[in-house]
Amino acid sequence: MFGRFKHMNDLFYGEINNGIVTSCDGDGKTYELEDLEVLPPCNPSKIICVGLNYHDHAAEVGMKVPDEPVIFIKPPSAVLGHRGKIIYPRSSHRVDYEAELAVIIGKRCKNINYERAYDVIAGFTCFNDVTARDLQRRDVQWTRAKSFDTFAPVGPFIMPADDFDPDNAYIKARVNGEIRQDSNTSNLIFDVPYLIEFISGIMTLEVGDIIATGTPPGIGELNPGDIVEIEIEGIGILSNEVV
Amino acid sequence: MFGRFKHMNDLFYGEINNGIVTSCDGDGKTYELEDLEVLPPCNPSKIICVGLNYHDHAAEVGMKVPDEPVIFIKPPSAVLGHRGKIIYPRSSHRVDYEAELAVIIGKRCKNINYERAYDVIAGFTCFNDVTARDLQRRDVQWTRAKSFDTFAPVGPFIMPADDFDPDNAYIKARVNGEIRQDSNTSNLIFDVPYLIEFISGIMTLEVGDIIATGTPPGIGELNPGDIVEIEIEGIGILSNEVV
Repeated sequence: MFGRFKHMNDLFYGEINNGIVTSCDGDGKTYELEDLEVLPPCNPSKIICVGLNYHDHAAEVGMKVPDEPVIFIKPPSAVLGHRGKIIYPRSSHRVDYEAELAVIIGKRCKNINYERAYDVIAGFTCFNDVTARDLQRRDVQWTRAKSFDTFAPVGPFIMPADDFDPDNAYIKARVNGEIRQDSNTSNLIFDVPYLIEFISGIMTLEVGDIIATGTPPGIGELNPGDIVEIEIEGIGILSNEVV
Repeated sequence: MFGRFKHMNDLFYGEINNGIVTSCDGDGKTYELEDLEVLPPCNPSKIICVGLNYHDHAAEVGMKVPDEPVIFIKPPSAVLGHRGKIIYPRSSHRVDYEAELAVIIGKRCKNINYERAYDVIAGFTCFNDVTARDLQRRDVQWTRAKSFDTFAPVGPFIMPADDFDPDNAYIKARVNGEIRQDSNTSNLIFDVPYLIEFISGIMTLEVGDIIATGTPPGIGELNPGDIVEIEIEGIGILSNEVV
Protein backbone atom coordinates (compact mmCIF):
# COMPACT_ATOMS: atom_id res chain seq x y z
CA MET A 1 0.00 0.00 0.00
CA PHE A 2 1.29 3.46 -0.97
CA GLY A 3 0.61 6.97 0.25
CA ARG A 4 1.85 10.55 0.23
CA PHE A 5 3.18 11.97 3.44
CA LYS A 6 4.57 15.05 5.09
CA HIS A 7 7.33 15.04 7.70
CA MET A 8 8.59 18.44 8.83
CA ASN A 9 8.80 20.25 5.46
CA ASP A 10 9.39 17.14 3.35
CA LEU A 11 6.65 15.78 1.09
CA PHE A 12 7.19 12.25 -0.23
CA TYR A 13 5.56 9.08 -1.49
CA GLY A 14 6.03 6.06 0.73
CA GLU A 15 5.21 2.36 1.00
CA ILE A 16 3.39 1.25 4.15
CA ASN A 17 4.07 -2.06 5.91
CA ASN A 18 2.89 -2.82 9.45
CA GLY A 19 2.82 0.81 10.50
CA ILE A 20 6.26 1.56 9.01
CA VAL A 21 6.52 3.92 6.03
CA THR A 22 9.49 3.55 3.67
CA SER A 23 10.14 6.60 1.49
CA CYS A 24 10.04 5.91 -2.26
CA ASP A 25 12.30 8.88 -2.94
CA GLY A 26 15.49 6.88 -3.31
CA ASP A 27 16.88 7.48 0.14
CA GLY A 28 14.71 4.64 1.49
CA LYS A 29 14.32 6.40 4.87
CA THR A 30 11.77 4.83 7.22
CA TYR A 31 9.27 6.46 9.57
CA GLU A 32 6.58 5.40 12.01
CA LEU A 33 3.22 5.97 10.23
CA GLU A 34 1.89 7.76 13.31
CA ASP A 35 4.68 10.36 13.14
CA LEU A 36 3.63 11.45 9.64
CA GLU A 37 0.94 13.70 8.26
CA VAL A 38 -1.09 11.75 5.69
CA LEU A 39 -1.58 13.74 2.47
CA PRO A 40 -4.02 12.96 -0.35
CA PRO A 41 -2.41 9.88 -1.98
CA CYS A 42 -2.30 11.43 -5.46
CA ASN A 43 -2.23 14.80 -7.16
CA PRO A 44 -4.96 14.71 -9.82
CA SER A 45 -5.24 17.04 -12.82
CA LYS A 46 -8.93 16.13 -12.78
CA ILE A 47 -11.45 14.03 -10.89
CA ILE A 48 -14.03 12.33 -13.09
CA CYS A 49 -17.09 11.14 -11.19
CA VAL A 50 -19.83 8.78 -12.33
CA GLY A 51 -23.49 9.40 -11.47
CA LEU A 52 -26.00 6.61 -10.78
CA ASN A 53 -23.82 3.46 -10.96
CA TYR A 54 -25.11 0.97 -8.36
CA HIS A 55 -27.99 -1.41 -9.14
CA ASP A 56 -29.22 -1.23 -5.55
CA HIS A 57 -29.06 2.59 -5.51
CA ALA A 58 -30.98 2.79 -8.83
CA ALA A 59 -33.63 0.50 -7.30
CA GLU A 60 -33.73 2.63 -4.12
CA VAL A 61 -34.43 5.86 -6.00
CA GLY A 62 -36.73 4.15 -8.51
CA MET A 63 -34.66 5.15 -11.54
CA LYS A 64 -33.99 2.91 -14.48
CA VAL A 65 -30.48 1.65 -15.06
CA PRO A 66 -28.81 4.15 -17.46
CA ASP A 67 -27.58 3.02 -20.91
CA GLU A 68 -24.30 4.90 -20.55
CA PRO A 69 -22.40 6.36 -17.59
CA VAL A 70 -23.25 9.96 -16.71
CA ILE A 71 -20.05 11.79 -15.80
CA PHE A 72 -19.20 15.05 -14.11
CA ILE A 73 -15.94 16.65 -12.98
CA LYS A 74 -14.69 17.89 -9.62
CA PRO A 75 -11.74 20.32 -9.70
CA PRO A 76 -8.34 19.53 -8.11
CA SER A 77 -8.98 22.39 -5.66
CA ALA A 78 -11.61 20.20 -3.94
CA VAL A 79 -9.12 17.46 -2.92
CA LEU A 80 -8.81 16.69 0.81
CA GLY A 81 -6.69 14.04 2.53
CA HIS A 82 -7.43 11.58 5.34
CA ARG A 83 -8.24 13.43 8.58
CA GLY A 84 -8.60 16.74 6.67
CA LYS A 85 -11.64 18.81 7.58
CA ILE A 86 -14.68 19.11 5.31
CA ILE A 87 -15.78 22.76 5.35
CA TYR A 88 -19.57 23.18 5.37
CA PRO A 89 -20.24 26.06 2.94
CA ARG A 90 -22.37 29.01 4.02
CA SER A 91 -24.35 28.88 0.77
CA SER A 92 -25.74 25.37 1.45
CA HIS A 93 -28.12 23.98 4.05
CA ARG A 94 -27.83 20.33 3.10
CA VAL A 95 -24.45 18.63 2.63
CA ASP A 96 -24.33 14.86 1.99
CA TYR A 97 -21.67 12.13 2.09
CA GLU A 98 -21.37 9.62 -0.79
CA ALA A 99 -19.07 6.61 -0.31
CA GLU A 100 -17.27 5.67 -3.52
CA LEU A 101 -14.51 3.43 -4.80
CA ALA A 102 -11.85 5.55 -6.56
CA VAL A 103 -9.55 4.38 -9.34
CA ILE A 104 -6.14 6.11 -9.51
CA ILE A 105 -4.63 6.38 -12.98
CA GLY A 106 -0.99 5.25 -13.26
CA LYS A 107 -0.24 6.01 -16.91
CA ARG A 108 -1.05 8.86 -19.29
CA CYS A 109 -3.52 7.37 -21.74
CA LYS A 110 -6.30 7.83 -24.32
CA ASN A 111 -8.74 5.39 -25.96
CA ILE A 112 -8.01 2.38 -23.75
CA ASN A 113 -9.98 -0.78 -24.55
CA TYR A 114 -11.85 -2.69 -21.85
CA GLU A 115 -9.31 -5.51 -22.06
CA ARG A 116 -6.33 -3.17 -21.54
CA ALA A 117 -7.83 -1.10 -18.71
CA TYR A 118 -5.61 -2.63 -16.03
CA ASP A 119 -2.51 -1.43 -17.88
CA VAL A 120 -3.33 2.17 -16.88
CA ILE A 121 -4.55 1.69 -13.30
CA ALA A 122 -2.14 2.43 -10.46
CA GLY A 123 -4.53 1.29 -7.77
CA PHE A 124 -7.66 1.93 -5.74
CA THR A 125 -8.66 4.00 -2.76
CA CYS A 126 -11.68 5.40 -0.87
CA PHE A 127 -13.46 8.55 -2.01
CA ASN A 128 -16.21 10.69 -0.52
CA ASP A 129 -18.21 12.56 -3.20
CA VAL A 130 -19.37 15.30 -0.81
CA THR A 131 -22.38 17.09 -2.31
CA ALA A 132 -24.40 20.21 -1.43
CA ARG A 133 -27.70 18.46 -2.15
CA ASP A 134 -29.84 21.62 -2.07
CA LEU A 135 -27.62 23.34 -4.65
CA GLN A 136 -27.53 20.18 -6.78
CA ARG A 137 -31.34 20.26 -6.91
CA ARG A 138 -31.46 23.99 -7.64
CA ASP A 139 -28.86 24.11 -10.43
CA VAL A 140 -29.44 22.07 -13.56
CA GLN A 141 -25.77 21.17 -13.55
CA TRP A 142 -24.15 19.41 -10.59
CA THR A 143 -20.83 21.24 -10.78
CA ARG A 144 -21.37 23.89 -8.11
CA ALA A 145 -22.84 21.43 -5.61
CA LYS A 146 -19.86 19.09 -5.98
CA SER A 147 -16.94 21.53 -6.39
CA PHE A 148 -16.52 23.32 -3.07
CA ASP A 149 -13.03 23.22 -1.56
CA THR A 150 -12.67 20.07 0.65
CA PHE A 151 -15.56 18.27 -1.15
CA ALA A 152 -13.28 15.53 -2.53
CA PRO A 153 -11.83 13.59 0.42
CA VAL A 154 -9.62 10.77 -0.93
CA GLY A 155 -7.41 8.11 0.67
CA PRO A 156 -5.98 7.24 3.04
CA PHE A 157 -3.70 5.08 0.85
CA ILE A 158 -3.58 3.46 -2.58
CA MET A 159 -3.93 -0.30 -2.81
CA PRO A 160 -2.11 -1.47 -5.97
CA ALA A 161 -4.36 -2.95 -8.65
CA ASP A 162 -2.74 -6.41 -8.33
CA ASP A 163 -3.76 -6.67 -4.68
CA PHE A 164 -7.41 -5.59 -4.90
CA ASP A 165 -10.54 -6.97 -6.58
CA PRO A 166 -12.79 -4.03 -7.51
CA ASP A 167 -15.65 -6.39 -8.43
CA ASN A 168 -16.17 -7.74 -4.94
CA ALA A 169 -15.41 -5.45 -2.02
CA TYR A 170 -17.68 -4.22 0.75
CA ILE A 171 -18.13 -0.45 0.75
CA LYS A 172 -19.52 1.43 3.75
CA ALA A 173 -20.16 4.94 4.98
CA ARG A 174 -20.36 5.65 8.72
CA VAL A 175 -21.37 8.90 10.39
CA ASN A 176 -20.24 9.17 14.03
CA GLY A 177 -19.75 5.41 14.02
CA GLU A 178 -23.24 4.57 12.69
CA ILE A 179 -23.45 2.67 9.40
CA ARG A 180 -25.32 4.65 6.70
CA GLN A 181 -24.21 2.99 3.47
CA ASP A 182 -23.45 -0.72 3.25
CA SER A 183 -23.09 -2.33 -0.15
CA ASN A 184 -20.62 -4.20 -2.32
CA THR A 185 -18.84 -3.10 -5.49
CA SER A 186 -20.33 -6.22 -7.14
CA ASN A 187 -23.45 -4.01 -7.49
CA LEU A 188 -21.69 -1.59 -9.86
CA ILE A 189 -23.67 -1.10 -13.08
CA PHE A 190 -20.60 -0.12 -15.16
CA ASP A 191 -17.49 -1.88 -13.88
CA VAL A 192 -14.03 -0.34 -13.67
CA PRO A 193 -12.68 -1.44 -17.10
CA TYR A 194 -15.92 -0.20 -18.72
CA LEU A 195 -15.47 3.22 -17.08
CA ILE A 196 -11.81 3.42 -18.17
CA GLU A 197 -12.80 2.64 -21.77
CA PHE A 198 -15.69 5.12 -21.72
CA ILE A 199 -13.84 8.02 -20.09
CA SER A 200 -10.51 7.56 -21.90
CA GLY A 201 -12.52 7.60 -25.14
CA ILE A 202 -13.47 11.19 -24.29
CA MET A 203 -10.38 12.64 -22.65
CA THR A 204 -6.70 11.97 -22.08
CA LEU A 205 -6.15 10.65 -18.57
CA GLU A 206 -3.04 11.74 -16.66
CA VAL A 207 -1.02 10.04 -13.92
CA GLY A 208 -2.77 10.65 -10.60
CA ASP A 209 -6.18 11.39 -12.11
CA ILE A 210 -9.09 10.01 -10.09
CA ILE A 211 -12.16 8.20 -11.39
CA ALA A 212 -14.86 8.00 -8.69
CA THR A 213 -17.14 5.12 -9.56
CA GLY A 214 -20.48 6.19 -8.04
CA THR A 215 -22.22 5.64 -4.72
CA PRO A 216 -24.43 2.84 -3.30
CA PRO A 217 -27.80 3.43 -1.54
CA GLY A 218 -28.15 5.13 1.82
CA ILE A 219 -26.94 8.63 1.06
CA GLY A 220 -27.76 11.21 3.71
CA GLU A 221 -26.74 14.39 5.42
CA LEU A 222 -23.73 15.62 7.33
CA ASN A 223 -23.60 18.35 9.95
CA PRO A 224 -20.76 20.34 11.52
CA GLY A 225 -19.04 18.23 14.18
CA ASP A 226 -19.80 14.92 12.42
CA ILE A 227 -17.05 12.40 11.70
CA VAL A 228 -17.66 10.68 8.35
CA GLU A 229 -15.82 7.49 7.48
CA ILE A 230 -15.68 5.73 4.13
CA GLU A 231 -14.50 2.13 4.43
CA ILE A 232 -13.69 -0.23 1.59
CA GLU A 233 -12.77 -3.83 2.31
CA GLY A 234 -9.10 -4.43 1.53
CA ILE A 235 -8.27 -0.72 1.35
CA GLY A 236 -9.00 0.91 4.69
CA ILE A 237 -10.88 3.81 6.23
CA LEU A 238 -10.98 7.43 5.05
CA SER A 239 -12.02 9.61 7.99
CA ASN A 240 -12.93 13.31 7.95
CA GLU A 241 -14.54 15.73 10.34
CA VAL A 242 -17.12 18.28 9.17
CA VAL A 243 -16.52 21.82 10.42
CA MET B 1 0.00 41.36 -24.91
CA PHE B 2 1.50 38.09 -23.61
CA GLY B 3 1.62 34.54 -24.90
CA ARG B 4 3.26 31.16 -24.51
CA PHE B 5 5.51 29.99 -27.31
CA LYS B 6 7.63 27.15 -28.54
CA HIS B 7 10.90 27.57 -30.42
CA MET B 8 12.83 24.40 -31.18
CA ASN B 9 12.53 22.58 -27.82
CA ASP B 10 12.16 25.71 -25.69
CA LEU B 11 8.81 26.66 -24.16
CA PHE B 12 8.55 30.20 -22.82
CA TYR B 13 6.25 33.11 -22.02
CA GLY B 14 6.80 36.19 -24.13
CA GLU B 15 5.57 39.75 -24.64
CA ILE B 16 4.39 40.64 -28.14
CA ASN B 17 5.01 44.04 -29.75
CA ASN B 18 4.55 44.69 -33.48
CA GLY B 19 5.23 41.07 -34.44
CA ILE B 20 8.31 40.77 -32.20
CA VAL B 21 8.21 38.45 -29.20
CA THR B 22 10.48 39.19 -26.22
CA SER B 23 11.02 36.23 -23.90
CA CYS B 24 9.94 36.85 -20.29
CA ASP B 25 12.37 34.20 -19.04
CA GLY B 26 15.06 36.61 -17.97
CA ASP B 27 17.29 36.25 -20.99
CA GLY B 28 15.14 38.80 -22.88
CA LYS B 29 15.77 37.04 -26.21
CA THR B 30 13.67 38.29 -29.13
CA TYR B 31 12.02 36.36 -31.96
CA GLU B 32 9.86 37.06 -34.97
CA LEU B 33 6.31 36.01 -34.02
CA GLU B 34 5.96 34.12 -37.29
CA ASP B 35 8.96 31.91 -36.42
CA LEU B 36 7.30 30.64 -33.23
CA GLU B 37 4.70 28.03 -32.49
CA VAL B 38 1.88 29.66 -30.50
CA LEU B 39 0.94 27.58 -27.44
CA PRO B 40 -2.17 27.98 -25.29
CA PRO B 41 -1.44 31.22 -23.38
CA CYS B 42 -1.91 29.64 -19.95
CA ASN B 43 -1.76 26.28 -18.23
CA PRO B 44 -5.01 25.96 -16.26
CA SER B 45 -5.64 23.55 -13.37
CA LYS B 46 -9.31 23.94 -14.27
CA ILE B 47 -11.60 25.71 -16.73
CA ILE B 48 -14.82 27.01 -15.21
CA CYS B 49 -17.50 27.80 -17.78
CA VAL B 50 -20.73 29.73 -17.34
CA GLY B 51 -23.97 28.61 -19.00
CA LEU B 52 -26.63 31.05 -20.29
CA ASN B 53 -24.99 34.46 -19.67
CA TYR B 54 -25.99 36.81 -22.53
CA HIS B 55 -29.27 38.74 -22.48
CA ASP B 56 -29.63 38.44 -26.26
CA HIS B 57 -28.92 34.68 -26.19
CA ALA B 58 -31.50 34.17 -23.39
CA ALA B 59 -34.03 36.08 -25.51
CA GLU B 60 -33.09 34.01 -28.61
CA VAL B 61 -33.74 30.68 -26.89
CA GLY B 62 -36.78 32.02 -25.01
CA MET B 63 -35.35 31.27 -21.57
CA LYS B 64 -35.68 33.54 -18.60
CA VAL B 65 -32.60 35.27 -17.22
CA PRO B 66 -31.18 33.01 -14.46
CA ASP B 67 -30.95 34.22 -10.84
CA GLU B 68 -27.45 32.83 -10.41
CA PRO B 69 -24.75 31.70 -12.85
CA VAL B 70 -24.87 28.02 -13.84
CA ILE B 71 -21.32 26.69 -13.96
CA PHE B 72 -19.65 23.59 -15.35
CA ILE B 73 -16.04 22.48 -15.68
CA LYS B 74 -13.88 21.47 -18.65
CA PRO B 75 -10.74 19.47 -17.85
CA PRO B 76 -7.20 20.75 -18.63
CA SER B 77 -6.85 17.87 -21.12
CA ALA B 78 -9.30 19.70 -23.43
CA VAL B 79 -7.05 22.77 -23.90
CA LEU B 80 -6.01 23.64 -27.47
CA GLY B 81 -3.93 26.58 -28.70
CA HIS B 82 -4.34 28.97 -31.63
CA ARG B 83 -4.13 27.06 -34.95
CA GLY B 84 -4.46 23.71 -33.12
CA LYS B 85 -6.90 21.24 -34.67
CA ILE B 86 -10.29 20.50 -33.14
CA ILE B 87 -10.84 16.73 -33.38
CA TYR B 88 -14.43 15.79 -34.25
CA PRO B 89 -15.23 12.81 -32.01
CA ARG B 90 -16.63 9.60 -33.49
CA SER B 91 -19.30 9.41 -30.77
CA SER B 92 -20.97 12.70 -31.82
CA HIS B 93 -22.87 13.79 -34.93
CA ARG B 94 -23.29 17.44 -34.00
CA VAL B 95 -20.39 19.57 -32.80
CA ASP B 96 -20.93 23.32 -32.21
CA TYR B 97 -18.73 26.39 -31.74
CA GLU B 98 -19.45 28.86 -28.91
CA ALA B 99 -17.53 32.18 -28.91
CA GLU B 100 -16.66 33.31 -25.37
CA LEU B 101 -14.60 35.89 -23.54
CA ALA B 102 -12.16 34.15 -21.18
CA VAL B 103 -10.74 35.57 -17.96
CA ILE B 104 -7.26 34.33 -16.98
CA ILE B 105 -6.56 34.21 -13.25
CA GLY B 106 -3.29 35.82 -12.16
CA LYS B 107 -3.28 35.12 -8.43
CA ARG B 108 -4.20 32.13 -6.25
CA CYS B 109 -7.36 33.24 -4.46
CA LYS B 110 -10.57 32.35 -2.56
CA ASN B 111 -13.64 34.39 -1.55
CA ILE B 112 -12.84 37.51 -3.58
CA ASN B 113 -15.36 40.36 -3.33
CA TYR B 114 -16.82 42.04 -6.41
CA GLU B 115 -14.79 45.20 -5.68
CA ARG B 116 -11.48 43.30 -5.46
CA ALA B 117 -11.99 41.09 -8.51
CA TYR B 118 -9.46 42.94 -10.65
CA ASP B 119 -6.72 42.15 -8.11
CA VAL B 120 -6.78 38.50 -9.22
CA ILE B 121 -7.22 38.85 -13.00
CA ALA B 122 -4.12 38.49 -15.21
CA GLY B 123 -5.99 39.34 -18.38
CA PHE B 124 -8.43 38.30 -21.07
CA THR B 125 -8.42 36.16 -24.17
CA CYS B 126 -10.70 34.39 -26.67
CA PHE B 127 -12.26 30.99 -25.92
CA ASN B 128 -14.27 28.52 -27.96
CA ASP B 129 -16.54 26.36 -25.79
CA VAL B 130 -16.74 23.53 -28.33
CA THR B 131 -19.72 21.31 -27.54
CA ALA B 132 -21.04 17.97 -28.81
CA ARG B 133 -24.63 19.23 -28.90
CA ASP B 134 -26.23 15.81 -29.41
CA LEU B 135 -24.45 14.36 -26.36
CA GLN B 136 -25.28 17.47 -24.32
CA ARG B 137 -28.98 16.87 -25.05
CA ARG B 138 -28.76 13.14 -24.33
CA ASP B 139 -26.87 13.33 -21.00
CA VAL B 140 -28.42 15.21 -18.11
CA GLN B 141 -25.00 16.63 -17.29
CA TRP B 142 -23.02 18.66 -19.85
CA THR B 143 -19.60 17.31 -18.86
CA ARG B 144 -19.16 14.63 -21.53
CA ALA B 145 -20.33 16.92 -24.35
CA LYS B 146 -17.86 19.62 -23.35
CA SER B 147 -14.81 17.61 -22.25
CA PHE B 148 -13.39 15.93 -25.35
CA ASP B 149 -9.71 16.55 -26.02
CA THR B 150 -9.30 19.75 -28.13
CA PHE B 151 -12.74 21.10 -27.07
CA ALA B 152 -11.24 24.11 -25.25
CA PRO B 153 -9.43 26.29 -27.83
CA VAL B 154 -7.99 29.35 -26.07
CA GLY B 155 -5.87 32.30 -27.16
CA PRO B 156 -4.07 33.43 -29.15
CA PHE B 157 -2.66 35.82 -26.52
CA ILE B 158 -3.56 37.39 -23.18
CA MET B 159 -4.47 41.07 -23.10
CA PRO B 160 -3.61 42.43 -19.62
CA ALA B 161 -6.60 43.55 -17.56
CA ASP B 162 -5.44 47.19 -17.57
CA ASP B 163 -5.62 47.35 -21.35
CA PHE B 164 -9.04 45.80 -21.96
CA ASP B 165 -12.62 46.70 -21.07
CA PRO B 166 -14.60 43.46 -20.62
CA ASP B 167 -17.89 45.40 -20.42
CA ASN B 168 -17.78 46.70 -23.96
CA ALA B 169 -16.05 44.59 -26.58
CA TYR B 170 -17.44 43.11 -29.79
CA ILE B 171 -17.36 39.31 -29.83
CA LYS B 172 -17.75 37.31 -33.04
CA ALA B 173 -17.59 33.76 -34.33
CA ARG B 174 -16.86 33.09 -38.00
CA VAL B 175 -16.98 29.75 -39.80
CA ASN B 176 -15.04 29.68 -43.07
CA GLY B 177 -15.08 33.49 -43.03
CA GLU B 178 -18.86 33.80 -42.56
CA ILE B 179 -20.09 35.61 -39.43
CA ARG B 180 -22.23 33.36 -37.21
CA GLN B 181 -22.13 35.11 -33.82
CA ASP B 182 -21.96 38.88 -33.50
CA SER B 183 -22.62 40.48 -30.12
CA ASN B 184 -20.98 42.62 -27.47
CA THR B 185 -19.85 41.75 -23.96
CA SER B 186 -22.09 44.59 -22.75
CA ASN B 187 -24.88 41.97 -23.09
CA LEU B 188 -23.39 39.79 -20.33
CA ILE B 189 -25.97 38.99 -17.64
CA PHE B 190 -23.36 38.40 -14.90
CA ASP B 191 -20.31 40.59 -15.46
CA VAL B 192 -16.71 39.56 -14.85
CA PRO B 193 -16.36 40.78 -11.21
CA TYR B 194 -19.67 39.06 -10.36
CA LEU B 195 -18.39 35.77 -11.79
CA ILE B 196 -15.08 36.06 -9.90
CA GLU B 197 -16.96 36.63 -6.62
CA PHE B 198 -19.40 33.78 -7.29
CA ILE B 199 -16.84 31.19 -8.42
CA SER B 200 -14.12 32.09 -5.89
CA GLY B 201 -16.79 31.72 -3.20
CA ILE B 202 -17.01 28.05 -4.19
CA MET B 203 -13.47 27.06 -5.06
CA THR B 204 -9.88 28.25 -4.77
CA LEU B 205 -8.71 29.68 -8.10
CA GLU B 206 -5.14 29.05 -9.22
CA VAL B 207 -2.81 31.07 -11.45
CA GLY B 208 -3.63 30.27 -15.08
CA ASP B 209 -7.17 29.03 -14.38
CA ILE B 210 -9.69 30.03 -17.04
CA ILE B 211 -13.20 31.39 -16.50
CA ALA B 212 -15.19 31.25 -19.75
CA THR B 213 -18.00 33.79 -19.48
CA GLY B 214 -20.72 32.28 -21.70
CA THR B 215 -21.72 32.63 -25.34
CA PRO B 216 -23.92 35.12 -27.27
CA PRO B 217 -26.68 34.10 -29.75
CA GLY B 218 -26.00 32.41 -33.07
CA ILE B 219 -24.51 29.10 -31.99
CA GLY B 220 -24.34 26.49 -34.72
CA GLU B 221 -22.54 23.51 -36.11
CA LEU B 222 -19.03 22.73 -37.25
CA ASN B 223 -17.93 20.08 -39.72
CA PRO B 224 -14.56 18.54 -40.55
CA GLY B 225 -12.59 20.90 -42.79
CA ASP B 226 -14.18 24.03 -41.32
CA ILE B 227 -12.06 26.89 -40.02
CA VAL B 228 -13.64 28.48 -36.94
CA GLU B 229 -12.50 31.88 -35.71
CA ILE B 230 -13.38 33.60 -32.45
CA GLU B 231 -12.67 37.32 -32.54
CA ILE B 232 -12.87 39.73 -29.62
CA GLU B 233 -12.31 43.43 -30.16
CA GLY B 234 -9.03 44.52 -28.57
CA ILE B 235 -7.77 40.96 -28.13
CA GLY B 236 -7.49 39.30 -31.54
CA ILE B 237 -8.54 36.19 -33.42
CA LEU B 238 -8.40 32.57 -32.24
CA SER B 239 -8.43 30.32 -35.30
CA ASN B 240 -8.81 26.53 -35.41
CA GLU B 241 -9.47 23.93 -38.06
CA VAL B 242 -11.87 21.04 -37.47
CA VAL B 243 -10.52 17.63 -38.49
